[in-house]
Amino acid sequence: MKKILLAFSGGLDTSFCVPWLMHEKQMEVHTILVNTGGFSPIELESISNRAKQLGSASHLNADVTDAFYQQGIRYLLFGNILKNDTYPLSVSSERIFQALEWVAHAKKIGASALAHGSTGAGNDQIRFDLVCNVLAPELELITPIRELQISRKDEIDYLKKHGFDFSWEKSKYSINQGLWGTSVGGVETLKSCGILPQEAWPHQIEKEGAETLSITFEKGEPVAVNGIAMNPVEAIKEINRMGHAYGVGRDIHVGDTIIGIKGRVGFEAPAALILIKAHHLLEKHVLTKWQQYWKKQLADWYGMLLHEAQYLDPVMRNIEKFLEETQERVSGTVQVELRPYHFSILACEAPYDLMNSKFGDYGEVNKGFTGMDVQGFTKILGNQMNIYHSIKPGNDE
Amino acid sequence: MKKILLAFSGGLDTSFCVPWLMHEKQMEVHTILVNTGGFSPIELESISNRAKQLGSASHLNADVTDAFYQQGIRYLLFGNILKNDTYPLSVSSERIFQALEWVAHAKKIGASALAHGSTGAGNDQIRFDLVCNVLAPELELITPIRELQISRKDEIDYLKKHGFDFSWEKSKYSINQGLWGTSVGGVETLKSCGILPQEAWPHQIEKEGAETLSITFEKGEPVAVNGIAMNPVEAIKEINRMGHAYGVGRDIHVGDTIIGIKGRVGFEAPAALILIKAHHLLEKHVLTKWQQYWKKQLADWYGMLLHEAQYLDPVMRNIEKFLEETQERVSGTVQVELRPYHFSILACEAPYDLMNSKFGDYGEVNKGFTGMDVQGFTKILGNQMNIYHSIKPGNDE
Amino acid sequence: MKKILLAFSGGLDTSFCVPWLMHEKQMEVHTILVNTGGFSPIELESISNRAKQLGSASHLNADVTDAFYQQGIRYLLFGNILKNDTYPLSVSSERIFQALEWVAHAKKIGASALAHGSTGAGNDQIRFDLVCNVLAPELELITPIRELQISRKDEIDYLKKHGFDFSWEKSKYSINQGLWGTSVGGVETLKSCGILPQEAWPHQIEKEGAETLSITFEKGEPVAVNGIAMNPVEAIKEINRMGHAYGVGRDIHVGDTIIGIKGRVGFEAPAALILIKAHHLLEKHVLTKWQQYWKKQLADWYGMLLHEAQYLDPVMRNIEKFLEETQERVSGTVQVELRPYHFSILACEAPYDLMNSKFGDYGEVNKGFTGMDVQGFTKILGNQMNIYHSIKPGNDE
Amino acid sequence: MKKILLAFSGGLDTSFCVPWLMHEKQMEVHTILVNTGGFSPIELESISNRAKQLGSASHLNADVTDAFYQQGIRYLLFGNILKNDTYPLSVSSERIFQALEWVAHAKKIGASALAHGSTGAGNDQIRFDLVCNVLAPELELITPIRELQISRKDEIDYLKKHGFDFSWEKSKYSINQGLWGTSVGGVETLKSCGILPQEAWPHQIEKEGAETLSITFEKGEPVAVNGIAMNPVEAIKEINRMGHAYGVGRDIHVGDTIIGIKGRVGFEAPAALILIKAHHLLEKHVLTKWQQYWKKQLADWYGMLLHEAQYLDPVMRNIEKFLEETQERVSGTVQVELRPYHFSILACEAPYDLMNSKFGDYGEVNKGFTGMDVQGFTKILGNQMNIYHSIKPGNDE
Repeated sequence: MKKILLAFSGGLDTSFCVPWLMHEKQMEVHTILVNTGGFSPIELESISNRAKQLGSASHLNADVTDAFYQQGIRYLLFGNILKNDTYPLSVSSERIFQALEWVAHAKKIGASALAHGSTGAGNDQIRFDLVCNVLAPELELITPIRELQISRKDEIDYLKKHGFDFSWEKSKYSINQGLWGTSVGGVETLKSCGILPQEAWPHQIEKEGAETLSITFEKGEPVAVNGIAMNPVEAIKEINRMGHAYGVGRDIHVGDTIIGIKGRVGFEAPAALILIKAHHLLEKHVLTKWQQYWKKQLADWYGMLLHEAQYLDPVMRNIEKFLEETQERVSGTVQVELRPYHFSILACEAPYDLMNSKFGDYGEVNKGFTGMDVQGFTKILGNQMNIYHSIKPGNDE
Repeated sequence: MKKILLAFSGGLDTSFCVPWLMHEKQMEVHTILVNTGGFSPIELESISNRAKQLGSASHLNADVTDAFYQQGIRYLLFGNILKNDTYPLSVSSERIFQALEWVAHAKKIGASALAHGSTGAGNDQIRFDLVCNVLAPELELITPIRELQISRKDEIDYLKKHGFDFSWEKSKYSINQGLWGTSVGGVETLKSCGILPQEAWPHQIEKEGAETLSITFEKGEPVAVNGIAMNPVEAIKEINRMGHAYGVGRDIHVGDTIIGIKGRVGFEAPAALILIKAHHLLEKHVLTKWQQYWKKQLADWYGMLLHEAQYLDPVMRNIEKFLEETQERVSGTVQVELRPYHFSILACEAPYDLMNSKFGDYGEVNKGFTGMDVQGFTKILGNQMNIYHSIKPGNDE
Repeated sequence: MKKILLAFSGGLDTSFCVPWLMHEKQMEVHTILVNTGGFSPIELESISNRAKQLGSASHLNADVTDAFYQQGIRYLLFGNILKNDTYPLSVSSERIFQALEWVAHAKKIGASALAHGSTGAGNDQIRFDLVCNVLAPELELITPIRELQISRKDEIDYLKKHGFDFSWEKSKYSINQGLWGTSVGGVETLKSCGILPQEAWPHQIEKEGAETLSITFEKGEPVAVNGIAMNPVEAIKEINRMGHAYGVGRDIHVGDTIIGIKGRVGFEAPAALILIKAHHLLEKHVLTKWQQYWKKQLADWYGMLLHEAQYLDPVMRNIEKFLEETQERVSGTVQVELRPYHFSILACEAPYDLMNSKFGDYGEVNKGFTGMDVQGFTKILGNQMNIYHSIKPGNDE
Repeated sequence: MKKILLAFSGGLDTSFCVPWLMHEKQMEVHTILVNTGGFSPIELESISNRAKQLGSASHLNADVTDAFYQQGIRYLLFGNILKNDTYPLSVSSERIFQALEWVAHAKKIGASALAHGSTGAGNDQIRFDLVCNVLAPELELITPIRELQISRKDEIDYLKKHGFDFSWEKSKYSINQGLWGTSVGGVETLKSCGILPQEAWPHQIEKEGAETLSITFEKGEPVAVNGIAMNPVEAIKEINRMGHAYGVGRDIHVGDTIIGIKGRVGFEAPAALILIKAHHLLEKHVLTKWQQYWKKQLADWYGMLLHEAQYLDPVMRNIEKFLEETQERVSGTVQVELRPYHFSILACEAPYDLMNSKFGDYGEVNKGFTGMDVQGFTKILGNQMNIYHSIKPGNDE
């Protein structure tokens, strides 16, 4: 019997796929859940059990949190990447790493086919399809939900028919949790004018007043929070914990989906937003103007391609190298203030700070140059504009 | 006697310049204060009086607020321009319009020279010098403070010697107020690690809880606040008023000055930040992906050149045309929420919204295309990556 | 009976489509040939006759040469657009204008369907499909050749069966001629290492030695050749005529097709190449550095989107406005030298030339500034690098 | 006595500097000529002798050709860098490497000052000043020619007075020769409309007919010419030799100088142009679309900053890393055809060629995808345009 590996989440759609692939396609169905940092041990166990109940020949809960950080988040942070100046790509970045692991595991177990449970209406189908097309073109790809355009009711009936009478309550909001943020979609996010109610947000505000937080970076990566050394993944978790208590890092992302329609989704991503803004402040102090300029150009593009499923284009590896190269001096400690709904990036200390009073205090004293130098500078800077504005046709005579 | 026009603020430096230019340069000193929306009638009268006391042959309080909006702020808003993703160019944009008026007035009164009171340590000298060099290369430019590198004490003594015994208390912070924001510099902003205390901010928080605000745009310009029609300048003032009460729009800008050193300054700009973020949301709904992409490229550059005194480069006129052209459909109403320290852009309604359920709800239903279409799309999208990843040297055989 | 409008070229594929659509789809087949400047009156008449013979209910030879120039070539010239620094988009730009006219005519005659004869292997299918999808989503689109994947032999047999026993000799090279250039594909261009033989090029070299040619531009458009006033379309034809005699403007384009594979094609486009290079020289003299920089960014992108069928994205209209705006001063006369295989852009005269000896001769005399000014300029220009290179961690003390 | 190191060329200006610095500044004058590949052994010896005659305390002919290739030309080639699509930066790139060696040698010999002989009218003064300011801010910089604004006659008289009665004939053209090309300026290049006569070009055409040349690249670097292995510096010399005989690689560069005025100069750079175009062809075959796009963005900027003396900005190191990273697969052999005045890049063979018939021949056969895939692709590609063009205000109801 042909082996197929199904990307399994334990939800109705992918649960339906297990018996359907077995009975309608006569395949040996293996399942995988790829955890990018958003699942608790209890959730993982329950998903694993569900897979087995449904008849999965083997189920794997693969934890790729470290790879997700090392090969994904790290560059999102180096690049201060916020899609449309807003969204840290919380979900879209995860999907790629889930798809990579899904394909890798399929090859490992000798599967001849791959399956995922995406519908035909979103971005995720493209991310999974594309990784499969590119890295495993020899494997067959089956996408039952998209192909059948089946209704929830028909899925539940099919499962019942095969003896699986679970309760499948549809939650009001579709919530997606990962290390780099949590997305919240549904009801109000489906219209441009809808406003998510307080209770829709997964984390509720618990604290008042203000609290200060310090984050220490080394070559662009977070290595300590409030002076306590920890690895980057721990730092992200710790900052998320602190931020959630103040309800910071919430926003609504409105963007152009890969399929050309506009999409709108709420998200909570305190660690992502705080780390990016803190890291950005440090860079304003230690990088030159043109380093910042080009980092931004490349990073925004990197974010766009990652979002749009093109992580496997080799230009991504080239950009990663560039970003990495710029982080050599991005070390130092940043002060952040948390308040209900709001955080501020206050100040920083950095050994390679270019704001160095040996060379003058801006607007106060100039030590490395004179007013005459600036006058000459301005003369030359304006030369071309001067010529442009003085030229009238034929006045060279 | 030669006429000179001095850009006059009423502060110690420019007050010193009046008698100095008269006595040391034997010139007829005329003065001008160019108001870009930050001066009250009382302040204007007091500056006017001070100029006359000091011996100004004529003083003009020129109000260029409308021109500043029409030819400056409008494009900053069309472009959602925040330098380093943070600073709305509150001060730097004003300076150019002040310099333009200063030069225009000098030509009007037949002056043969121009003077400004900038030191050699900041950006402003470059903005004033450059506009003078480019638009009035035939006028002599005298910059006493920069040339003399004179101390406050010597300025005060010189003024006393000439009979002007005013009190010149040095304020702790240098505050610069205009329509597009207020800057706060000094003490803590001079070091990377300094944090401005609450009392340093010109406006103090007066309100608690949350308040909703609606802003209506027409072709990119604000035309109503909370449903009450008003012109853009009034709208900016109204939103500033509301925002100040919540302390929103405060931040610290760290940037590369024109002279190559890093500068750091606090600012309060609630209207600028709220309008830019609200306008940006509207654009996310009505513009295509590539319109947004290229607007951003050009706008960020526009902001940089404006900041760096290059407003008179003709590329600026070309970019303005581009930005204007993109605003055709940028109309609609945006909901904003104000809270202490924080504002959120909540939602919008727009007649040209591309997030239109006739074409599908993202992630839910696809009406304008099928899952098969997406599968084909992804196949083609991944074609080059597929080839790239399958090629091994010499495997074409 | 339903009306369908077929884009008709008179070749085997589209000839096959006429009876096929009539007999297999029971439609009233109308045909259109859209001429973008590459067809002679004799060719047009013969195509018209062929359409009628095959049973076309109505045939139109639509001439869109002027529209192609006004809305297409003009911007390609303003933007100096050469894809991959090589290819003037001779064919790809035409296709869009052909598709636009095809859709417009279909609406005019009240057709309920559209047909084209492209295969599934190239870019053209995308250009025709997309214009149809976007501007006439209500019309059915039928693409017999792509759908049937039919062989030449089967097409000929089908035609014979329906009484059309024409001779269909397959030419060795596929040649596509238009106002902005001629493409030559086949045999050698299908492999990376193939070199087109001399006889494959449609025009053979007739002249020896050197000849000088002058082109006069007004606001970016060619208005005279060798001092003889003519409209831009005439100028293009005249320069093509002169260039062909020397075999200039030939090259090979290797590019990324819309479908992700690499494509390779020869082309002859003397007028396009000469006009672009001459226009570019004029711009180097009359535009500022940043005007040139941003024109290039936008223009290259414009070329890419045009090539990739995205002419109807509104960003294209925004870019056109920008490009147009930059042409205000792009007037003057350029000298060009023609030789066998080679042309050189020699020199120019332009009323708004910024290379103006009133302001100094580069490297010889500086009239508008002093050596001291340059020294000051350099001091400030190097400030940030100076700080960067002198900073060692902890040396602020 | 203070030691000063003078950048010495043997020409009138720098010859004048030697006695002038000795007698007017009482310094011990050391001299250096930095050879970037343009000087013959005889020229070097004569310059060395001249320096000693004039009283140089020590003279060094430093050969930095290899460093110039490794740290400069290599990246210009990786980036296919042609300023304004024309000029390979032949001279401007050399200057930086000369300045670096000049400063390094000054530190080595313990000089306390540096001198160069540039005037105040060109770019070179900025390149030398800036490297000195940034890398040796502690050294005094003396620039006699710029400071004195001395005439040729006065220089000759001064030299005579100090016993140096050499003949100083002013050549009609100023010619600057280096590994990456030769520049020719003077007389006709000083006006926009001037055309250099044949005899002004340093190399005259010697050959007729056509000749084919093959260049083999490995990871972006030339490693063989016509199948004969050689190192990149040798390859450049060999291709220059071959190209000069056909007069190829000549052109006129018109550009924006660092000082804001327009500059115009002729150049001969056959190896640079041939190698760049050949390398570019290879990249069109082996790189993805977005690799090519971003390489171009970064490379053009790299060229601009290098030209404008900003080689020491760390962003240059970041870009170099990016460019290097993209060259991994840029290997293969390119065929070039030489004719009088003209060269053509004909074809190539490359092991990592993405134009691979396993995946389809463009426009002929599609093996990796179907016509249906393309139809779906186009549907999705046009989605946003479709929505955009169908939206009329208020039509969501």
